Parts: sequence; structure tokens; C-alpha cells
Amino acid sequence: MPAPSEFLTYIDTHADQFINGRLTEAVKKPSISTDPNHRQDDIDMGLWIKDQLESFGLTTTAIDLGPQMNDGQTVMKGDEPLQLPYLILGRAGEDPEKKTVLVYCHYDVQPADMKDGWKYDPWTLTETSTHQLYGRGSTDDKGPLCGWLNVLEAHKNCNLDLPVNLRFCFEGMEESDSEGLDNWIIAEAKKPNHGWFAGVNCVCITDNYWLNTRSPCLTYGVRGVVAFDLNIAGPQADLHSGLFGGMVYEPMTDLVHIMSKLVAPNGRILIPNIYDGTSLQPGEKEEYEKLDWTLDDLKEITGTDVALYDDKASELMGRMRFPSLSLHGINGAYSDSGFKTVIPHSVTGKFSVRIVPPQDPKQIAKLVEDYVKQEWALLQSKGSMSITTSGEGKPWIANNQDWHFSAAAKATYEIYQTQPDLTREGGSVPVTVTFSEALGSNVSVLLLPMGRSDDGAHSTNEKIDRANFIGGSKLFGAYLYEVAAATISS
Amino acid sequence: MPAPSEFLTYIDTHADQFINGRLTEAVKKPSISTDPNHRQDDIDMGLWIKDQLESFGLTTTAIDLGPQMNDGQTVMKGDEPLQLPYLILGRAGEDPEKKTVLVYCHYDVQPADMKDGWKYDPWTLTETSTHQLYGRGSTDDKGPLCGWLNVLEAHKNCNLDLPVNLRFCFEGMEESDSEGLDNWIIAEAKKPNHGWFAGVNCVCITDNYWLNTRSPCLTYGVRGVVAFDLNIAGPQADLHSGLFGGMVYEPMTDLVHIMSKLVAPNGRILIPNIYDGTSLQPGEKEEYEKLDWTLDDLKEITGTDVALYDDKASELMGRMRFPSLSLHGINGAYSDSGFKTVIPHSVTGKFSVRIVPPQDPKQIAKLVEDYVKQEWALLQSKGSMSITTSGEGKPWIANNQDWHFSAAAKATYEIYQTQPDLTREGGSVPVTVTFSEALGSNVSVLLLPMGRSDDGAHSTNEKIDRANFIGGSKLFGAYLYEVAAATISS
Repeated sequence: MPAPSEFLTYIDTHADQFINGRLTEAVKKPSISTDPNHRQDDIDMGLWIKDQLESFGLTTTAIDLGPQMNDGQTVMKGDEPLQLPYLILGRAGEDPEKKTVLVYCHYDVQPADMKDGWKYDPWTLTETSTHQLYGRGSTDDKGPLCGWLNVLEAHKNCNLDLPVNLRFCFEGMEESDSEGLDNWIIAEAKKPNHGWFAGVNCVCITDNYWLNTRSPCLTYGVRGVVAFDLNIAGPQADLHSGLFGGMVYEPMTDLVHIMSKLVAPNGRILIPNIYDGTSLQPGEKEEYEKLDWTLDDLKEITGTDVALYDDKASELMGRMRFPSLSLHGINGAYSDSGFKTVIPHSVTGKFSVRIVPPQDPKQIAKLVEDYVKQEWALLQSKGSMSITTSGEGKPWIANNQDWHFSAAAKATYEIYQTQPDLTREGGSVPVTVTFSEALGSNVSVLLLPMGRSDDGAHSTNEKIDRANFIGGSKLFGAYLYEVAAATISS
Repeated sequence: MPAPSEFLTYIDTHADQFINGRLTEAVKKPSISTDPNHRQDDIDMGLWIKDQLESFGLTTTAIDLGPQMNDGQTVMKGDEPLQLPYLILGRAGEDPEKKTVLVYCHYDVQPADMKDGWKYDPWTLTETSTHQLYGRGSTDDKGPLCGWLNVLEAHKNCNLDLPVNLRFCFEGMEESDSEGLDNWIIAEAKKPNHGWFAGVNCVCITDNYWLNTRSPCLTYGVRGVVAFDLNIAGPQADLHSGLFGGMVYEPMTDLVHIMSKLVAPNGRILIPNIYDGTSLQPGEKEEYEKLDWTLDDLKEITGTDVALYDDKASELMGRMRFPSLSLHGINGAYSDSGFKTVIPHSVTGKFSVRIVPPQDPKQIAKLVEDYVKQEWALLQSKGSMSITTSGEGKPWIANNQDWHFSAAAKATYEIYQTQPDLTREGGSVPVTVTFSEALGSNVSVLLLPMGRSDDGAHSTNEKIDRANFIGGSKLFGAYLYEVAAATISS
């Protein structure tokens, strides 16, 4: 069932107000969750959204997630515990005849400063002559969040009933590891009948991007990650390389040898059995060949040809479908641009493995740790080695042919006149996994992006295109109507 | 000819004044050459020494070495060029019947700050109950410099003629690559009859340390060094490892692979032909077995057993006699203690090779560069690689059996009642090579250290032992008498 034409017309005719009013207001608030000095701005941003939801008739709750913690200690700001921003919940509709859709966005943003190279003030939404809307949070994730508010406003002002019951879950700590969110979701979902999540049929996460700058997509998978700290320690303090070079085992030498055994220059991970269970099914490669993407899309971003493979499908599978291992750097070694005659006494290699279903972070951590211990033993070096994980996230994959994806694909076609690409994210979107696990296999989860691949989330000059902001607002509405019309099946 | 007893007695009876007066005064001046804000202190320190030399009747010159330069540009401090500290020259005696001894020290120091962990104010010389004298520059190199002033004072106040003509060359930029010094030495030495260096028979450099904490030594060799920057660049900007890991060649992977091909964990350099010309002569190993040093001396400094070899001679030869290669770190990669999902786009490995006679920095640079280029080609990676040298110093070795070393050994025996160890430095002391080359093979150069191996030059809690400061002052005087009495021969 397509969205009513009044709705679509309302979005089009109010585009300027949505941009110059709502999105401009939202971008103006520096809700930087990583900076305690901006915590009040972050909290204010949440309360502003709560007001908006109430003005459209929704029931809201501001969940107090308690104080921010660090290594088991309460983080203080001055004499007071630093409070986490509220989790803003909104409910519209309790009709048992309708499906119930849970929507997730976040209202916090990354830091931004003119001196980092912004073309325009990052807190003043600025539209260019080619209709890019520049500003911090424009695409990550205030644009999508405002898109949902646009949908609510249109329905209220057009006197349209919403076709589904809606549950909004808007968090203010996404850029800071979503502190507090997972625990709340898991605890709530464990209540009888899933507590606040009672009746939810599907989850729509609007916090990722198209695969390119041209075509809409639906996202049905994310890679997981396991991050490692590989420490090698020798002498009790740094030594002078003139006085001690040639006398002592050097931790940097050992570390570089072990790091070179992790991954080959051609991208192949060298850890035995790390690809177990990830082999391709017949016809799977062809799915990647269908996606609207070329090696030139990559070259545009990397600025030079550094592709590992000559063919598009292998490149896309390298990003989405297979594990990868990246070496990020070394802590404790000399890292400046000059020269220092130092033998660092203790160095920690930083690397991470991106994983895919059916891999589990704990299983991969053990594989990697066992292998590194074995390689360390082969070095026959003195000193000591330890390897620990410093973070992990599970991979996730959904059935991209279920009723929910079909409904979202229909809605996409209605708005963009094209079938959406079906993509997997190379990065981790941990809340996806949390919702998926907490709400169980009867609840279908998908990611429905608004912005484009070149929007520059987290970077300087973050933008969203006017076409995506307005088209995305229409898509969100259309999606609700197609979900309402669909027959639930797996 | 031993030093006259009046001289030795004067040093002993004036020990407290030398410490509480001269050395305390010298340490009080923060003549930090690396910090432009302390340039005037550095200059003042030089002029204070000039005054002292004049008070003992020496003819002095303060050589203006011009403004400090950086990459061909004059370094400015405010609106003014930053002047280099003076090279302070002193002459005592013009007697053609006497030998002429050139003495080198430096009067500038490394930075020091209580917050780095000093037990006492680094600018207030502090004597402990066990007679260590703590303070920045106490051993590097104000202690030895003051030792020479003590010798001059004793001779003046005892009405003793100096047994040799003396030439003092005191610089104020040693901790900043001796900027300006080499050019001046080379230009002066090229003048007819070697200019200011006319008549010099031998050079005594007092700017290094005993091999241990127990026994005096004479130093007859230094290793050279060639430092390298190995850059690998790929994408034009850093990439997110979630979004691009598995799609692109990663510069860190390539760099770690090449760095692992430079040196083995057991310290063996893996570059073909790098040991050419350095093999041991018959009986040479036995010379190292004679030195007063044990594996426990190393363990005391490193705090744990990280020795590459089980035997003392191999360890000492690893430090002094053979080349070594140390990996210092990586510029451009992640280097903090946390975790960042980054694929660094351009990384520069920092490493250096210590070299020994007859190796030449240029020849070693070519060996290393050719090898790295070959290893890079084998990787078959995309992106680009470049390798450049960022510093070099020649190695040096003297005939430790010539008249000059024999005289210094005799003087050492007179003061310490033991034969000195004959050592080579693992580090570079570039001015040694400069004097040796500029003054030619007829001029014998040696290093005559005052302090001990645990003095902590460049570190927090730098100290010199009272016994070394006073014993060293006597040794310097005794050395002059033995040089005066010796018959020049090679």
C-alpha cells in the first residue's frame, strides 16, 4: 500500500521549513557526547526531541541511564557525577490490529571545529547552490532523526492516521559506545512480554549510508570486530640504541615479526582456520556483482588505485562478506616525525579482526591468541608477551527476503523508482545486534539508510543532500505503509 | 712523569670548594641548547667559562658561529635571528719545546624538569650521604669541563708550570647536533699549518663514561650510525577499517613486512653483505674477555635478562665491535593507548644501523636502500615506497697502543692503581671523527671519561660520584704530565 499522496505532497511543499527550521535547529545544538563540557547540550538535544514528539501527540519517557562510568568508577564533572544523556522513548498508537515498528536513531554527534578544515561553521546548517546541506550531524544521525519527525508532523497536519504503531528509541551516546543502552534494552526485553518492546514486529535502524552516491539500499548484515592489544616487553626502561643495540633482545623487533605473521600484503589473513565457516554458497558471488558499485567508486575515495582485487564482486565481498585484519599502529614506540636513538622497552601492537557470521568474537579471539602465542614461542626471544582483547562486537545477518525487507524494498521503489541494493556493512553497528538478539528471531531488523556514501560522517564537512533528506523523509513514511500492508512471514 | 704531589694535594684539599663552588655554579645555569628560551643561559654559561679561563691566565676567544639554521632557513626568535652559543676557545702556553694537547668538552645540557621524576632540583647540585652529586650536566659534560678548570686553578695557585701547551675547545651545542662546530673545525684545520690548531699533537675528548661503575677506561673507537625513514603510502587519507578492511592494500601491513626483513629477533641483521669487512681478527675476542664487565652489569641496567648472548665477549662485541640495527618506531600510525578503527594512509618506519670501521655511512645506506627496494618489489603491493636517510655519522677507531694511549694508561694507573680498560663506544661521538679527520693521522685522538656507566646522562637523576669528579680532576692533570713525558711514536 503506497503512502497517501497528501503525505508525499506535504513533505515536498514543506521541504524548506524542514531544512531551515527543524534540521537547522537540530544541527545548531552541539550535542557532542564524547565531550563532558557539551553534556548539557547533549541532554538539551534529547529534551528538544521529546518536546517535538509530544507536540505530535506521542507519549514520551526520558530514561535516566545513570552516571557515566569508566573502568567501574563514576566519571565526575567537578563535584557531581557526570550524568548520561537521556534515552528518549516515544510511543504512537496502541492498536492491536496494527503492526508495531520500532525505530532507532541517535541524537549525539562527533566533535567539529572550523580549524579542522570545515568550509562552513559546522553548527550552522548551510545549503550550497548544488543543494548539499553541510553541518555536523546533518547525515549522522540528525538528518534521519528529523526525517522521522517530518513524517509525524505531516501525519498530524494532514489529519492522517499512522498506519502502524510506532516506538521511537533515540539515544544520545552512540558516538561514545552507546553507554547504558545495551543494558537497558536487554533488561527491558527480558521483562514479561518484552516490557516496553511489547508487540514490536520489526526494527528499523536509520544510521548508515548508501553504498554509493546514486542508489538507495537496504542493509541486512554488519561485520563484527575483535580488537587486540599485543604487548611485548623487555628491558625495564627505554635504552639508547647506540649503547645497547646488538646486546639485547628488542621488543620492537619481536613485535614487528609477529605482526608480519598476521596478515599478508595481499590482505589474506595468515591465522590458520580463520576463514572456517565463511566459504561462499553457490550463486552468492553473483549477488555482489548485481550491486550498483564500481572500482571507480573506490578510487574516488582512496584517491589512487589501492584495490586488492581486480573485480568488483571480490572487492565488495572483501568489505562485507569476509573477515579482514588491519594493523592500526604501535603504542610505546617512537612515533614522531624526527629521529630518536631509542630502543623502546615495551611496545603494544594494535590490530583488529573484522568478522562475519557464523564467527563469534570469543572463538576468533581464542584462535588469534593461540596463534600469536605459538608464533611468540617460535621467536625464542627473551622478555615477555601478552595478548588481550580491547573490544569486541558480534557480526549480524538477516534474511533479506523476508516480509519486512520486501516491504522496505517496495517503499524504496515507490520513492526512488528503483529496486534498492541489498548491502552488508563492513563496519559494526552494535545496536543492530543488540536489538536482534534481545527481541528474538520473530522480530525482523533492517537498516534503512537516508544518506550517501560520500556524506563524510565523522569527518570534516559532513553533509546530507537535500534530495536524500527529503526523499528519505518520504521513504520513511512509505516504508510504514508497506509494512502495514505486508503479511508477516519469514 | 707523575703529576707533582702539590697538584694532587691541592685537588684533594679543595674538593669541597670544587663541588660547592665551581660545579654547583655550573649546574645552576640551565644551558639547554635544544630550547631557544634558554639560549641566553647557554650563552651566559659559555661566557662564565671564558671568564674562568682568563682568571687562570689563558688567552680566550669567543667564536661567533652565526645564527641557528633549519633546513637552510635562519631560525628566528621573535624578530631576531637565534644566535648560536659561542664556541669558547682557550690557549695556555706557546712553548715549542712542549707538546700541545687539545681538550674538548661541551657546556650545554639536556632539558630537565622535576615533574619527570627527579629526586632533587636538577639545577641545584645535591650531594647525597653516599657522595653522589645529583644535577643536570653533573656528568654530561659540566663535571669533566669543571675538572679541567680545577686542573688550571691548581696549577695557578700552586705556582706550577703546565707541562704542555693547552688548547681548549668548549662548545655549547653538543646536545643539538653540534651545529656550527664541524664547519668551524674543518675550515680552521684547512688553514696553513692548521690555523688555531697549529702544533696540536693529540686530542683528549672528555665526554663519555666508564664501561661499568668500578674501573676507569680509555676509549679508542666509536660506532657510526645511519638513520632511515622508510615511508609507505597508499590511500590519500586514513580509512575506516570496518568500511575498507579487506578492500585495499594497507601501508601498515606492507611496512611491518619490510621491517621484519631487516633484523631477526636474535639481533642478526638480515641485509645481505652488511657484515662484510667486519670479521674478527685472531685474538680479538680475547681482548673483550679481558674487560671488567659481566652479564650482571647489563642486567642491573635492563632490570631483567634480555641479553642476546650467553657470554660476555659476544655481548661486548655486539655493542662495540659489530653493526646493529634497531627499529625505533612508526610515524603516521595510531600510537595512543586506546583503540581506533583506522587504516593509516601513510606510515614511516624509523630505524637505524650502527656501523663499525671500515664501514662507511654512504656505502651502508646504499646496501640498505637497495635491499629494501628489492623487498618492496617482492611484496607486489600497490601504493608507493620511499626510503631516505635522516642522519649519519662515521665510525672511528684509533690505535690504542700508541704513545698517547700509553701515556693516558700510565696516568690512569697513577691515580686509580689499575690499568684502564680499553673500550669502544657503541654510540656515536661525531666530534671525535671530525677532529680525527680534520687534524690528520699524525694527531692521536682518545676519549678519557670521568663518569661511570650508571650516571644517567640525558636521563632523570643525572649524577656524578664525588670520587669520579675529584679522581677525574687528578687524572686529567696526571694525563698532561704523562703526555709531556712521552716520546711521540705510532
